[in-house]
Amino acid sequence: MWQLYQFPLCPFSRKVRLLLSEKGVPYELWRENPWEGRDEFLNRNPAGRTPVLQDPARGITLVDSRAICEYFEETVDRSPMINGTAANRAEIRRLVALFDENFFGDVTAPMLHERMKKRLIYRQSPDSRVLREAMKLAHEHLYYIDHLIDHRPWLAGPTMSLADLAAAAQISVADYLGGLDWTGHDQARDWYAVFKSRPSFRPLLSERMEVIQPPSHYADVNA
Amino acid sequence: MWQLYQFPLCPFSRKVRLLLSEKGVPYELWRENPWEGRDEFLNRNPAGRTPVLQDPARGITLVDSRAICEYFEETVDRSPMINGTAANRAEIRRLVALFDENFFGDVTAPMLHERMKKRLIYRQSPDSRVLREAMKLAHEHLYYIDHLIDHRPWLAGPTMSLADLAAAAQISVADYLGGLDWTGHDQARDWYAVFKSRPSFRPLLSERMEVIQPPSHYADVNA
Repeated sequence: MWQLYQFPLCPFSRKVRLLLSEKGVPYELWRENPWEGRDEFLNRNPAGRTPVLQDPARGITLVDSRAICEYFEETVDRSPMINGTAANRAEIRRLVALFDENFFGDVTAPMLHERMKKRLIYRQSPDSRVLREAMKLAHEHLYYIDHLIDHRPWLAGPTMSLADLAAAAQISVADYLGGLDWTGHDQARDWYAVFKSRPSFRPLLSERMEVIQPPSHYADVNA
Repeated sequence: MWQLYQFPLCPFSRKVRLLLSEKGVPYELWRENPWEGRDEFLNRNPAGRTPVLQDPARGITLVDSRAICEYFEETVDRSPMINGTAANRAEIRRLVALFDENFFGDVTAPMLHERMKKRLIYRQSPDSRVLREAMKLAHEHLYYIDHLIDHRPWLAGPTMSLADLAAAAQISVADYLGGLDWTGHDQARDWYAVFKSRPSFRPLLSERMEVIQPPSHYADVNA
């Protein structure tokens, strides 16, 4: 059985979990706080980041969320998530990078720092200016999702793809941490509501990260 | 003809240029300073980053260096760079992520900020503490390359791969900006020396970024 080293609010682990569930690949959750820098974890992944996916029986260790997703896309035929022509696949990967890098850097990373790390590790109060800036940038990203959904059924085209999983993973963490104001983003909200009711998404929405509580709408599939 | 929007010290554009050259795909260089945030460029790529690769005749725009590399890996058979079993390919992509994200974040990005942006844009002096920290972290990355090359001919295995191109691209920018001390890194230096003499690498080594001059060893294939 695959063992996924992760913590509940890691957006990249969430992306991998969504992909594994959609493809029907069973896995166990192993908790890892990468900020603790455990030697055993750093030996598995010198980059010091989650997720890491390991199958001890077969001696395989997979590192980096995009490398993990490409691995299962290549080895499991069910529910293709990087599909279509080379140009379609490039569009999917462009959007994965946009959410993994820009949305994460603009929104998820500062929210995680202010609302999770400062609470659990540094015992500090969040900086309201940083939170406001992250929420402002979140609006820009939601507007871009509105724009995409105006033109396409799913973010990268006619079918659900890894772009949708990457976006939903980042958004779910930002939403958990109270970083999203959905007012005026009807298209993005409708797209995300479809996601929240998928079987692959339900386990994520029911998990909690220690003392940090999400807003009431977070796990409500009708909100 | 493909048009590559880039600036001379963009490590991600360098990775794409190395891949295109190794695969024999002709392209033109178009200069883009992403920090200027030109509307025309942001329309091409809302992420606001280089490289962007466009073929106006065919109406194709490719964005994000990893998406671009995967596109040419899928469409051009010559010189495969993400090759082997699914596990081999996962190892190549793990290392690409390590250099694109960790090496870039630890070394290339702070060096670019202190030595390029502060000089060309902000007209400030570099912060020597930031430079020292980046150079310290560069040593850790070079030790990891030493370790890999102790066990393998190329970074990800028996043949040259996108992992080598990603690493060489980051290293070449850090080296240009004086961020690397090669003392004690014989394996990494020997691996990089092989790269410097490849036809795909020569054009990069001969380019200069405005007033910023590299150290004398930078373009010397015997240094």
